[in-house]
Amino acid sequence: MADAAMTTPKDELMVAIAPDVAKIEQSMREDLQEVTTGSDPLLSEVLEYGIFNGGKRLRPLLLVLAARLCGFRSDGKRDIYKLAIAFEYLHGATLFHDDVIDRADMRRGKPSVNKKFGVVAAILGGDFLHSRSMFLVGALGGIDALKIFCQATNAMVDGEFLQLRNAQNYNLSEDDYFAAVKGKTALLIAATCEIGALAGGATTIQQHALAEYGIGLGTAFQIIDDLLDYQGETVQTGKAVGNDFQEGKMTLPLILALSSASAEDKARLLFLLENESARQDGFSEVYGLIEKYDGFSSSRKRAESIVAKVVAGLRLFSGEECRPVLSVLNALAQYVLARKK
Amino acid sequence: MADAAMTTPKDELMVAIAPDVAKIEQSMREDLQEVTTGSDPLLSEVLEYGIFNGGKRLRPLLLVLAARLCGFRSDGKRDIYKLAIAFEYLHGATLFHDDVIDRADMRRGKPSVNKKFGVVAAILGGDFLHSRSMFLVGALGGIDALKIFCQATNAMVDGEFLQLRNAQNYNLSEDDYFAAVKGKTALLIAATCEIGALAGGATTIQQHALAEYGIGLGTAFQIIDDLLDYQGETVQTGKAVGNDFQEGKMTLPLILALSSASAEDKARLLFLLENESARQDGFSEVYGLIEKYDGFSSSRKRAESIVAKVVAGLRLFSGEECRPVLSVLNALAQYVLARKK
Repeated sequence: MADAAMTTPKDELMVAIAPDVAKIEQSMREDLQEVTTGSDPLLSEVLEYGIFNGGKRLRPLLLVLAARLCGFRSDGKRDIYKLAIAFEYLHGATLFHDDVIDRADMRRGKPSVNKKFGVVAAILGGDFLHSRSMFLVGALGGIDALKIFCQATNAMVDGEFLQLRNAQNYNLSEDDYFAAVKGKTALLIAATCEIGALAGGATTIQQHALAEYGIGLGTAFQIIDDLLDYQGETVQTGKAVGNDFQEGKMTLPLILALSSASAEDKARLLFLLENESARQDGFSEVYGLIEKYDGFSSSRKRAESIVAKVVAGLRLFSGEECRPVLSVLNALAQYVLARKK
Repeated sequence: MADAAMTTPKDELMVAIAPDVAKIEQSMREDLQEVTTGSDPLLSEVLEYGIFNGGKRLRPLLLVLAARLCGFRSDGKRDIYKLAIAFEYLHGATLFHDDVIDRADMRRGKPSVNKKFGVVAAILGGDFLHSRSMFLVGALGGIDALKIFCQATNAMVDGEFLQLRNAQNYNLSEDDYFAAVKGKTALLIAATCEIGALAGGATTIQQHALAEYGIGLGTAFQIIDDLLDYQGETVQTGKAVGNDFQEGKMTLPLILALSSASAEDKARLLFLLENESARQDGFSEVYGLIEKYDGFSSSRKRAESIVAKVVAGLRLFSGEECRPVLSVLNALAQYVLARKK
């Protein structure tokens, strides 16, 4: 028998979001069915495989919550879930393409689309999802929503180019890092929240607060991702630990450690980063040096303070009817901080 | 001194379309400048390199012509060129991605984006153009235009999947071939014409006739492409001759030859196609067999009759003011048939 004392905040969050997540899943199934009717069966198979992969559906959920917070009530005419799934499609499209770019064999513990179906399927399947997502945003959210969406996707591409450039730069500053994360991850989460706000009839101030919440949540998400890449357990994350370091990627724990390391330790860290052969056996040494300069705990503190600030920014939604949604948005932010995978 | 007797229909066509083509080029430069302001310089460089590559600008030109044929007159408020360039962007996006898929090193006689800037730039640069094109169609053409556009891009992806499947099938029928060409190439040209028609305030019948014109033009374009792959001169096309055959690709000349070949010749053709080692030295033999069964001339006849039919379908634009545009649309169709590269 379940013991009430044993329920965790995570359990409570999962219960609170379950009905929306179920409707999001159902909406995706129905939409994919509709849009691939008459298509090549392989296309359906690729999309099905790539999209129904145990993802958290965080993005569409945020859209639905933002809309509800701003006053959206289902009237049977407008389908908020169908607008919301656009963001899961776009997310899927970027994962399909990232797997080609990174030549990644695995995704969430199973073969990536690229590995299983090949590069044609991964690129074109991604293009298909990209196209469908933009259509849904334009058709159901209107031109203002499409504009916000495209600004975010453009920023995402730009963020990747910035990262490409940063890959050569081991003296990356914290500001550079946050700029890249904003483009690569956070602006799209912000767009999700903003477009939800628009659909709910938000005021400009409400829309802005939700955009900030999205930026903060996305940034914290990425920082925790960086931490998990060093500290996560492979069995939970489905990814190899130490990947970022092996690729010479400058993530926040490393940047913060470098910024406060002694000249000697800084030189040693840079040596390990710059030499591919040294990197191969250097993980535990780098891990130790990051820990010595509090790179992990400082990164976590950054994430916590970002989340605290943007959650506080939602206080302007002060009505009684806002409470349930605010409570979920707060719990989601805590979940992002606490997640182990 | 230029001799009037020496001007060809192609020269006349080039003169007739030059003002529109110049405005299309200018519109693309201005738009790319605007949309990449503040972006990573590498992104601008990649887009500039990939887009300003001596392309014919056939797609945006068709949109402008279709709009004008249906009554669009520039009033200084609506910018038809900015809507038109969306189709060049989308075309660019597909070329960027195709070069990754085909691992093509060359494009129009110079290194492909993939070769010159790498796979990240080719995939993400393509995504950027894709995203911008959809935004322009949604914002300037409206939701109806976006819907037509997305149906065409979805069909394009589907056509590629169909082709992937067909690659294993050496018994491809003429119908299979035309279905794949429709999805891969023709529907997008049709969408260009249709969206131009919409922007010009077309009636449903006018819109339909222009869509058919686009389908026909696109199909003829692909058939001629297939012919050039066997019969073109590398110095003009910038592509190696015999590529399709070396890849075992079933194109129209081969399909038509197979359908009327003797049992013995059919078996020989299939043997050459199915065996990679036999293919390497088999080009001239296959060429001879296709010629023996009129595969080339029959393909050309198919293209000619398709073009004749859809050009005739434009007769419903009977007003005096339609003549100049009709004459260009007719000349474009003849140019597609006559092109050497």
